[in-house]
Amino acid sequence: MSMMKGNAVIGQSGGPTAVINQSLVGVIETLKGCKSIPKILGANHGVSGIVKEKFIDLKKVDKTTLERVADTPAAALGSSRDKPDEAYCERIFKVFEKNDVRYFFYIGGNDSADAARIVNEMADAANYELRVFHIPKTIDNDLRVTDHTPGYGSAGRFVASAFAGDDRDSASLPGIKINVVMGRHAGWLTAASVLGKIDETCGPHLVYVPEVPFNVNQFVEDVRETYAKLGRCQIAVSEGISDETHTPIAVNLAERLGHRVERDSHGNVQLSGSGALGDFLSDFLKSNMKEKYKTLRVRADTFGYLQRSFAGYASSVDQIEARQCGRKAAELALAGDSDGSIVMIRAKGNTYKISYKRAELKDVARLTKDMPKTFLNKAGNGVTQAYVNYATPLVGELPKLGKLF
Amino acid sequence: MSMMKGNAVIGQSGGPTAVINQSLVGVIETLKGCKSIPKILGANHGVSGIVKEKFIDLKKVDKTTLERVADTPAAALGSSRDKPDEAYCERIFKVFEKNDVRYFFYIGGNDSADAARIVNEMADAANYELRVFHIPKTIDNDLRVTDHTPGYGSAGRFVASAFAGDDRDSASLPGIKINVVMGRHAGWLTAASVLGKIDETCGPHLVYVPEVPFNVNQFVEDVRETYAKLGRCQIAVSEGISDETHTPIAVNLAERLGHRVERDSHGNVQLSGSGALGDFLSDFLKSNMKEKYKTLRVRADTFGYLQRSFAGYASSVDQIEARQCGRKAAELALAGDSDGSIVMIRAKGNTYKISYKRAELKDVARLTKDMPKTFLNKAGNGVTQAYVNYATPLVGELPKLGKLF
Repeated sequence: MSMMKGNAVIGQSGGPTAVINQSLVGVIETLKGCKSIPKILGANHGVSGIVKEKFIDLKKVDKTTLERVADTPAAALGSSRDKPDEAYCERIFKVFEKNDVRYFFYIGGNDSADAARIVNEMADAANYELRVFHIPKTIDNDLRVTDHTPGYGSAGRFVASAFAGDDRDSASLPGIKINVVMGRHAGWLTAASVLGKIDETCGPHLVYVPEVPFNVNQFVEDVRETYAKLGRCQIAVSEGISDETHTPIAVNLAERLGHRVERDSHGNVQLSGSGALGDFLSDFLKSNMKEKYKTLRVRADTFGYLQRSFAGYASSVDQIEARQCGRKAAELALAGDSDGSIVMIRAKGNTYKISYKRAELKDVARLTKDMPKTFLNKAGNGVTQAYVNYATPLVGELPKLGKLF
Repeated sequence: MSMMKGNAVIGQSGGPTAVINQSLVGVIETLKGCKSIPKILGANHGVSGIVKEKFIDLKKVDKTTLERVADTPAAALGSSRDKPDEAYCERIFKVFEKNDVRYFFYIGGNDSADAARIVNEMADAANYELRVFHIPKTIDNDLRVTDHTPGYGSAGRFVASAFAGDDRDSASLPGIKINVVMGRHAGWLTAASVLGKIDETCGPHLVYVPEVPFNVNQFVEDVRETYAKLGRCQIAVSEGISDETHTPIAVNLAERLGHRVERDSHGNVQLSGSGALGDFLSDFLKSNMKEKYKTLRVRADTFGYLQRSFAGYASSVDQIEARQCGRKAAELALAGDSDGSIVMIRAKGNTYKISYKRAELKDVARLTKDMPKTFLNKAGNGVTQAYVNYATPLVGELPKLGKLF
């Protein structure tokens, strides 16, 4: 198949990651030399930038800047929370026709894969030749088909190092320490909290994820038990932990305190950018343990946006893979593939090795992937060795720590 | 003067840092070969470990473990919040007599320098020869005499990188972002938020420190102005910001909401380990700006204990200096100096160079050091180039970031 002539559009969408710009640069560097693609247009703030025709020509960006951008967290093109419906996608398609856009690369999560899918179907229906590729990104690691998502390893590296250091801090000044980790529906990132343990006496001693219904009374029991044994307790909690009725614990709190519950354009409740859940759990523990432990020290930290945006601490494995996902999408498009989502397939066996493949957009769009039961312990308050084996190669090298007591 | 025969005790105190173990290892490696010092006793949890005689013999720890410990954040010996009074110091002194302790190294802040001073005076009064050295540490950078404190550079590096990445995240999905930084009385660490800026359009756009009385109405005005100009605003706030009556804004909040205000054994109010201040400021901004900006996105993160305990991201300059402070204390003690606190003196001129000197314990004890007026802008919502010049060498190399918009 001959190389299609026309312009390319690249957009970034959803919550950014530390390596989403690696994928961006992977696409740009692969397309840059192609004479059949006169312009590589970067859409400012994803689909919203497309419909407003807010573009910059990425062919004009020099290599030094591109490499710095690749190493910079967050979406260098600007991101968007818009979830395009049919009418929105129609506007996108019209802009593409008007600007002779024949290649569309959309870096994002499952919602972005779905937007790409809709635009692709419209192009098909209009008999307009368009190459549409979704490039995965999310710190949540909750996309289907792919072994893991670009962005997860770097966020996991941050979380693992944060817990490892905080555990030593908590051992220095013992007490109960709660750390709230991002993860609305899936516990992948919270699970990464265990990856930096020096030994089994180190925290996190308890790990709670959204996949397991959270019972506040069982929580107090778990903490009491650890505290009685070790004289301290470090706890990892997903922001999205929910009770048996699937109501987030954070929402329970907001309603209890009479706060307005903020929702985004997707109808999701705001869980990040607030310390409320950690403070609630902290207060709950204090009031339930104060009779036995009069001077109990309880602290809560909410890691917040640092998990996805901290500069200078990405996983080198994640950086390489995110770059390669961008390149692969561009290569497939140039080679004549009309659409797809890039997925990473892990080789069987003990040596970590990834190959990059094409999946159908519809198989990645919309639905998400929770942690499997084999990665969670029976008590519902920890992760298994199988998870550790799965995740260790993704976070790159962790600092080698030591202890005296 | 001949080398004094007897054992050594080392303790760590107060809020740990990412390099407090570098100082510990600096002392150990300098004393390790001395035959006149049979035992180097590590006190478990500072002065509390001394009075309980909870020691480990640090001569028995192998070099690999020591090097790993040096690179590990938090106090490997365990820390303590105890502030010893005369009676407590008397007990410390008795334990020293009993165990033939002739060298005492105490790594801590101004309270620790004061404890060292009291113990030293007791030894003098009892005509008991004792070498007493205080080794500075604090992420707060608020000790007197010394140019800066070990621990500040690493915490500053974390804060600078966190702000730099979060600024790109906030540019991706624009809105108002508040980040609460540690610092009860002094704004040194909050000031470090500016060190990773790519250019002047980048955040933090506003910086509030405890040295300047915080006025909530002026705060709203400042944010409105920045938001009108840039369409977004990233804000750095010290946890200890206080109103004109010196009441912390966080305490105002606690009292307003009817929460118990937790205090430590020094009578200090708990400011860390809670997201309350950030959430309060966030709510205040939303309610005061909602008429003009209906869908305003306001988020707050409280960096919490990660600032002092994050593993694997210390400033290399800070690591070297903390190590050297430990060595210097041990060298002075071995050379016959009877007491003192180690201070770092910066050479005049453009090249950053530090020399290590002895200061009197009484000059470092108790009182603290705020940011000078020359480091704060006139509006009271930012820092000056003089501060940037002062702090840049301390945080080591920061990641080189890039932007497209």
